[in-house]
Amino acid sequence: MVMPFHDGLIVQTQSHDYPIVITEQSTTEHSSMAKQITSYISGRQVLIVTNDTVAPLYLKALEDELAEQFTVKVCVLPDGEQYKNQASIDQIYDALMTEHFNRDVTLIALGGGVIGDMTGFAAASFMRGVNFIQIPTTLLSQVDSSVGGKTGINHPQGKNMIGAFWQPQMVLADMSTLKTLPARELSAGVAEIIKYALIMDEAFLTWLEANLPAMMALDLAVLGEAVKRCCQYKADVVAQDERESGVRALLNFGHTFGHVIETHEGYGNWLHGEAVAAGMVQAAELSQKIGWLTDDEVIRIKRVLELANLPITPPAIDVDAALDLMGHDKKVKHGQIRLILLKSIGDAVMTNEFDSQLLHEVLSKHSA
Amino acid sequence: MVMPFHDGLIVQTQSHDYPIVITEQSTTEHSSMAKQITSYISGRQVLIVTNDTVAPLYLKALEDELAEQFTVKVCVLPDGEQYKNQASIDQIYDALMTEHFNRDVTLIALGGGVIGDMTGFAAASFMRGVNFIQIPTTLLSQVDSSVGGKTGINHPQGKNMIGAFWQPQMVLADMSTLKTLPARELSAGVAEIIKYALIMDEAFLTWLEANLPAMMALDLAVLGEAVKRCCQYKADVVAQDERESGVRALLNFGHTFGHVIETHEGYGNWLHGEAVAAGMVQAAELSQKIGWLTDDEVIRIKRVLELANLPITPPAIDVDAALDLMGHDKKVKHGQIRLILLKSIGDAVMTNEFDSQLLHEVLSKHSA
Repeated sequence: MVMPFHDGLIVQTQSHDYPIVITEQSTTEHSSMAKQITSYISGRQVLIVTNDTVAPLYLKALEDELAEQFTVKVCVLPDGEQYKNQASIDQIYDALMTEHFNRDVTLIALGGGVIGDMTGFAAASFMRGVNFIQIPTTLLSQVDSSVGGKTGINHPQGKNMIGAFWQPQMVLADMSTLKTLPARELSAGVAEIIKYALIMDEAFLTWLEANLPAMMALDLAVLGEAVKRCCQYKADVVAQDERESGVRALLNFGHTFGHVIETHEGYGNWLHGEAVAAGMVQAAELSQKIGWLTDDEVIRIKRVLELANLPITPPAIDVDAALDLMGHDKKVKHGQIRLILLKSIGDAVMTNEFDSQLLHEVLSKHSA
Repeated sequence: MVMPFHDGLIVQTQSHDYPIVITEQSTTEHSSMAKQITSYISGRQVLIVTNDTVAPLYLKALEDELAEQFTVKVCVLPDGEQYKNQASIDQIYDALMTEHFNRDVTLIALGGGVIGDMTGFAAASFMRGVNFIQIPTTLLSQVDSSVGGKTGINHPQGKNMIGAFWQPQMVLADMSTLKTLPARELSAGVAEIIKYALIMDEAFLTWLEANLPAMMALDLAVLGEAVKRCCQYKADVVAQDERESGVRALLNFGHTFGHVIETHEGYGNWLHGEAVAAGMVQAAELSQKIGWLTDDEVIRIKRVLELANLPITPPAIDVDAALDLMGHDKKVKHGQIRLILLKSIGDAVMTNEFDSQLLHEVLSKHSA
């Protein structure tokens, strides 16, 4: 369901196929973001949506070059998860309406996952659906948002509660944008990359163990290879389960434990990828207590996370508070806590068939 | 792409098939709305969305009976097109979140087109898409909203600018709800029924000429037959063009002229169906001037509209003002005014190839 080509891959979805172009060229004199995406813009109208962190880095060059061929309007939103809300979507709608843009418009998401999710949802809902292109500028969004079509915003009472499945016309993942990414965010992105190795492919974990030092030193070719592999893994999973009724849930490995950390510590204090890293260790520890993983495998998982400067220990959280937070997780069905655990490295399962005492032990290991 | 069954039809769409059940039974002692829809509710959670006009008529019986089997929550919105906005959608989201409803929820739209459009969009966007059922309680919405999957809200700067294509699990069109419908709204619904005859089937116009007196006298069986035929016509068109890139535009016959009337007179003063009726006459007059319709055919069109107590003359509007309002219509491409006109009764085309002087003559006939 996914076909590699020379510098990326083609993702096949129910609505249409689209390419993920993985390159290092867009910010060099040899090419540009505009040159890479122009042929995927079908109309004459373009709205670039970005945030006030990314705009100073990449907006002007993109805007100026696109303006040679298209009517270009820009919507710069404030940076941060707290702005992933209806008010920001309304700003995008207002920009589109003020410019009298119509069904032929293409929205361009220039930024990380928050910008991508919001721009995608605005594209899904403006005039019942218009085209959009993603230019993810963080490692996390290059790995996580390029495939799957999930778009949306937060509701005051819950994350990602409002949204749509909507596929882009193309994704431009330019590794050179990672040169301006803060080191903590690079690590947070690597956490998601390691996740794919743990749930799907032990051989990829071996590859990461060898290549993580180069990735952390911003070897763009190696980073590009890692991104490409992860997009491929995700595309394979999503193709089996576009609307997340089954196997796609495995992509949430580490996320239920991580959700507890993020919520308890307050969003933004732990980055999502950091919380997922510590959460994956907890999931691995539970898998070991059940008898699925060996002690050595748990140590191996911790070591690879440490290579990426990621936390392997959660903050101190009271066990009852943690269980309560798990009970409010979207992945809970009928009150039973279902977790994604590892049968072995590269083989994940979703299950609620484990002794709750073992979960209690894992949570109490670091409890307040 | 549509299959009739004993009391309705099955609509086939890209995502799934669903039935339109056309009945007169739901408000009698023999059946109920709840009995008709229960088997189409897959989860255990139900949110009924309605308005403060329809709620006193049908809500309590539906709510009480569903509550025997499901967790039922109600969201009553104020009645009127002016509330077809983001604030109403937010009220629906809040009701869903407050009740901790999840992906298994089914939304039920109990009301006319505004309630149906908003409930459908909330269903399309809550948790990236949940199920919904339509119980249209106006003739217009029974004919127009049962097929096609268009959902959405207005933006302060334009009607239906925000929305999604999202298909219901079933539609319950109960003719007995028309007993409580104001006479003007009944006529407005008949305008859309006549539209289908004019654009698609001359024989259906003959049928209407014979049966309109019974329809206006609330013969529910005849009304049900008319609704069924229109849903069939629309399903055939939509099946060819689910996302409105071509033939589906023909369903907007009379709407560009009607849009001028509605906008100029202020929304709500002319009902949508009334504006479409006068607009269809103007489109017919232009078709006659081009040489496509005969004088007798134009007279026949006016006469059938009069049988339904519909206006056949637009209000006095300055020609330049009218042309300006047409220029802002969504169906205009690249500044050329494209109109849906009749080659003959039952045969519509979309075209911009006509002498603009003829359009001027039609508009100036009733100009201020």
